[in-house]
Amino acid sequence: MTDNSTIYALSTPAGNGAIAVIRLSGDEAIQIADTLFRGKNKLKKLSTQKNYTLHFGSLVHKEDTIDEVLVSLFKSPQSYTGEDVVEISCHGSVYIQQRIMQALSENGARLATPGEFTMRAFLNGKMDLSQAEAVADLIASQSAASHKIAFEQMKGGFSSQLEILRNRLLHFISLIELELDFSDEDVEFADRKQFYHLLEEIDNHIYHLIKSFSYGNVIKTGIPVAIAGRTNVGKSTLLNTLLNEEKALVSDIAGTTRDVIEDTMIMDGITFRFIDTAGIRHTTDTIETMGIERTFERINKARIVLYIAEASDSAKDIEQALNGIILKENQHLILVLNKYDLLNNNELSLKQAEIQKLGIPAVFLSAKNKLNMHQLQKDIVEVIQADKNDSGVIVTNVRHYEALQQAKQAVDRIFEGLQNHISTDLIAQDLREVLYHIGEITGEITTDEVLGNIFKNFCIGK
Amino acid sequence: MTDNSTIYALSTPAGNGAIAVIRLSGDEAIQIADTLFRGKNKLKKLSTQKNYTLHFGSLVHKEDTIDEVLVSLFKSPQSYTGEDVVEISCHGSVYIQQRIMQALSENGARLATPGEFTMRAFLNGKMDLSQAEAVADLIASQSAASHKIAFEQMKGGFSSQLEILRNRLLHFISLIELELDFSDEDVEFADRKQFYHLLEEIDNHIYHLIKSFSYGNVIKTGIPVAIAGRTNVGKSTLLNTLLNEEKALVSDIAGTTRDVIEDTMIMDGITFRFIDTAGIRHTTDTIETMGIERTFERINKARIVLYIAEASDSAKDIEQALNGIILKENQHLILVLNKYDLLNNNELSLKQAEIQKLGIPAVFLSAKNKLNMHQLQKDIVEVIQADKNDSGVIVTNVRHYEALQQAKQAVDRIFEGLQNHISTDLIAQDLREVLYHIGEITGEITTDEVLGNIFKNFCIGK
Repeated sequence: MTDNSTIYALSTPAGNGAIAVIRLSGDEAIQIADTLFRGKNKLKKLSTQKNYTLHFGSLVHKEDTIDEVLVSLFKSPQSYTGEDVVEISCHGSVYIQQRIMQALSENGARLATPGEFTMRAFLNGKMDLSQAEAVADLIASQSAASHKIAFEQMKGGFSSQLEILRNRLLHFISLIELELDFSDEDVEFADRKQFYHLLEEIDNHIYHLIKSFSYGNVIKTGIPVAIAGRTNVGKSTLLNTLLNEEKALVSDIAGTTRDVIEDTMIMDGITFRFIDTAGIRHTTDTIETMGIERTFERINKARIVLYIAEASDSAKDIEQALNGIILKENQHLILVLNKYDLLNNNELSLKQAEIQKLGIPAVFLSAKNKLNMHQLQKDIVEVIQADKNDSGVIVTNVRHYEALQQAKQAVDRIFEGLQNHISTDLIAQDLREVLYHIGEITGEITTDEVLGNIFKNFCIGK
Repeated sequence: MTDNSTIYALSTPAGNGAIAVIRLSGDEAIQIADTLFRGKNKLKKLSTQKNYTLHFGSLVHKEDTIDEVLVSLFKSPQSYTGEDVVEISCHGSVYIQQRIMQALSENGARLATPGEFTMRAFLNGKMDLSQAEAVADLIASQSAASHKIAFEQMKGGFSSQLEILRNRLLHFISLIELELDFSDEDVEFADRKQFYHLLEEIDNHIYHLIKSFSYGNVIKTGIPVAIAGRTNVGKSTLLNTLLNEEKALVSDIAGTTRDVIEDTMIMDGITFRFIDTAGIRHTTDTIETMGIERTFERINKARIVLYIAEASDSAKDIEQALNGIILKENQHLILVLNKYDLLNNNELSLKQAEIQKLGIPAVFLSAKNKLNMHQLQKDIVEVIQADKNDSGVIVTNVRHYEALQQAKQAVDRIFEGLQNHISTDLIAQDLREVLYHIGEITGEITTDEVLGNIFKNFCIGK
C-alpha cells in the first residue's frame, strides 16, 4: 500500500487520439524522465528546471527516438500526489503510448494500480479521504447535479462540515478526559447542560447528513422513476414521448410490454432513470405475470412513481388503484391522467375537481399527442428539488453514510447514558466512537483494506 | 480555410478518463482563457505569465466553477500551431469536457475542424505539408516499421530529400532562364552535358522514391500475405498456427473454408495481413466457386503469396501448380511444404533436393504440430526487408506517389527533348513542371481543395 516506487500510467482515455498524457510520480520521476528526455538544450537536465514549466523535446530509449513530446514538471510537494510528478504529453498513437510506458518500466518505474496517484495524494496529506473519493465521483459525473455535489466534496465542502463536528467533539472530549484524570475529586469540568445542548446540535447535524444520502445517492446514480398503471393506459407511449424516441414497443394490445424497459434523461441538470413496467392486471400468461411481479419490485425501488390512468377513468377507480401502491418514506407519487384531450371541457373541469380532492399531485396530459408533457417534467424536477438538503452538503457515498449512521448510534447511546447518569468514562468511550466514525470518513482513521476497497474502483492513471 | 478565429477541440480520446486535454489556439486564446481561469493569485492574468509555464486554478463560467484545471501556456510563435495556444487539462469527465467547451464557445472560440491545428501549423510555416501529413500517420501507426517511417517523415527526412532535388532544379532553371533572356545571342549558360548528368541524378532519385512507395504503402496498411494452395493441404491450420488462435474453421472436409479469412500479426515490427483463401480445385458448389474466384483476386493483391503443398506431393505436381500463379513485379512467392513430419528422413532429403531445383524459397514445416514455423516467419520478414529502399526515405502517401510520378514524366520529357534538341523555352517549361510537382508534396504549391482533402482525414483536436 505504501511502497516508495516511482509509478506511471496513461492518464488519458485508452485509444488513439491527437495527444495522450502519461503521468509519472515518485522520488525518481524526474531522474527517470531525464534519462529518456532530450530537450532542445541537451545540457539542461529537467532536474535543474523550474517548477511548473513545460519542455519540448524528444523521448529517446536505447538510441531509438520514440516521439517528440512535451514534458510538464511538478516538483514535490507542489504536485497532485505531493511527490515529484512528470507528465509526458505525446502523440496519441497506442503504439507510441506503449513504447513510452515500456521505456519507463525499463528505467525502474512500475505501472500504477487503479487510483494510486490519488491514494498517494491522500497518504501525502494533499487531500482527505472523502475528497479523494470525490475525485472518482467527479470523473464519473454525467449531470450538472452529480457534478456539483462531487465538485463541492472534492473542494472540501463535506470535509469542513465534518471538521466542525470534530472540533466540537474534541473540545468536549478534552474536558471529559480532564474529569477522568481528576475522577477522585468528583468535579465536572464539562457542563452537562451545555454538553447536552452541544450533543443535540451534533445529532441534528449528523441526522441531516444521513438524510441527504437518500437524495445524494440517487443524484449520483440517477433518480429512478417507475411508470406504472393498469394495462393499455399509454405507459410506453409516455416513456417514448418523454425520451423523444421509440424505446418501448407500443401497440393497442393490452400487455405489449412485458420486459422492464429503462432509459435515462437529464432534466434541469438531474439524471432520471425512467422505468416502463408491465401493466398491472390479472393474467394467466406466465411471462406477463412475471413482468407484473417485477413491476411491483420496481415501484418499490423507485424514488418517484408515475401512476398513469386515463383521464376518463372514474376518480373512485383511480383512488382504489392508488391505494394498492404503498409508498415508503422518500418516495413520491405523481398521478398522470393520460388522453385528457378525449374529454370535452365540461368533463375535464369536473374530472379535475374530483382528482384535486385526492390530494395527490396530478397532471392531465396526452402522451400520444404530446400535450402538457412539459408540466409533467416540471413536476418531476420540483418533487426532487424539494428533497434537497438546505445545508448544501449532500452525502452520496455508501461508506460515508454507514459511518454517519454508526456515529449517530453512538450519539444516541450518549443521550441515553446522560439520562441514566452513567459514568463519565463510558460517555468518553462513546464520544471517542463518534470521533472514530467521523475520522473514518475523512481517513484520519483508516486501514489498508479500506483504502484498497476505495481505490480499486478508480480508473488507472488517476 | 484561413479564417482568424480562435479554435478549440478536445485533443485526448473521447470518453471518461483520469484527465482530458482541451486545446485552444488563435489570437484570442490567452484572452479567452483569462476570462474563465482563476489562478491562485487572482490578480495575475495568464497574459502576463511567462511562456511554457503551467498554472493551477479553477475554471469559472458565469459564476459557476466547472473544474479545477491545469493550464499550459504556449505563446506565438513558440507553439504547435505557431499561434498563441492554451491547453486546459481537466478531470476526464465527459460532462466537464462538454461544459468547458461550451464555455469556450460562449466566449468567442469555435470548434476546430478535423486537423485544423495541424493545418494552421502548416499555414504558419511550422512544418511543410508532407510533415503535416506524417502527423496523422504517426498517430495511426501501429507497428515499429510504420511508426519509424511516419516519425522520420514528420521530422523532415523526406522534406530534406525533396529540398535537395529542388535546389538543384532551381539552380538549373535560373541558368536556363538566363539563356532565354539572352536568346537573341544564342549562348548556352547551362552546360548541356552537365545538365544531362544532373537530370540523370534527379531521375534516379525520383525513381527510387517512387519505387519505395510499394514498400511504404504496405508497411502503412499492413503487408498482405495470401495463403493459397489446393484444398485440404492445411491452409487454415497454418493461419491458426501463425496467429496462435482458432481463427479459421478447420476440418478434414475439403472445401471447409469458403469465406476469405483475414487477420493481422506484427512480426519484427512489421504488420502482416494474413489472408486464408478457399482451396483451389474444380467444384460444382456455387458458393465455393465464388470463393475460389476471390482466392485468385486475393493472390493478385497480395505482396507475398504463401503457396502451401503437402511435403509428400510430387515435385512435378507442385511445379505445375506454381506455374498457374502469375506473379507481378513486387510480389514474392514462398513455397510451404506442410506435413513434412509424415516423411521419413530419406524421403525428406530426396524431396528437399527436388524442391531446391525449383529455385523458389521453400520451407518444410508442420502447421498442425507447430514444427519449423519460426523458419517461415523468418523468411516472410526477410523477403520484405529486402524490399527496403537503401536511401532510408520511404514514400507511404498516395498523394506524394502521384506527384512523384508526374515529376518523373516531366523529367522523361526533358530527356527526350534534349535528345531531339528542342528549344530551351520548352525545356524550361518542363523543368518548372518538375519543380511544381515536387512543390505539391511539401505544400509550396497547394490549393484549398488539396488542403481540405488532406486534413479532413485527421482526427479533431490535432
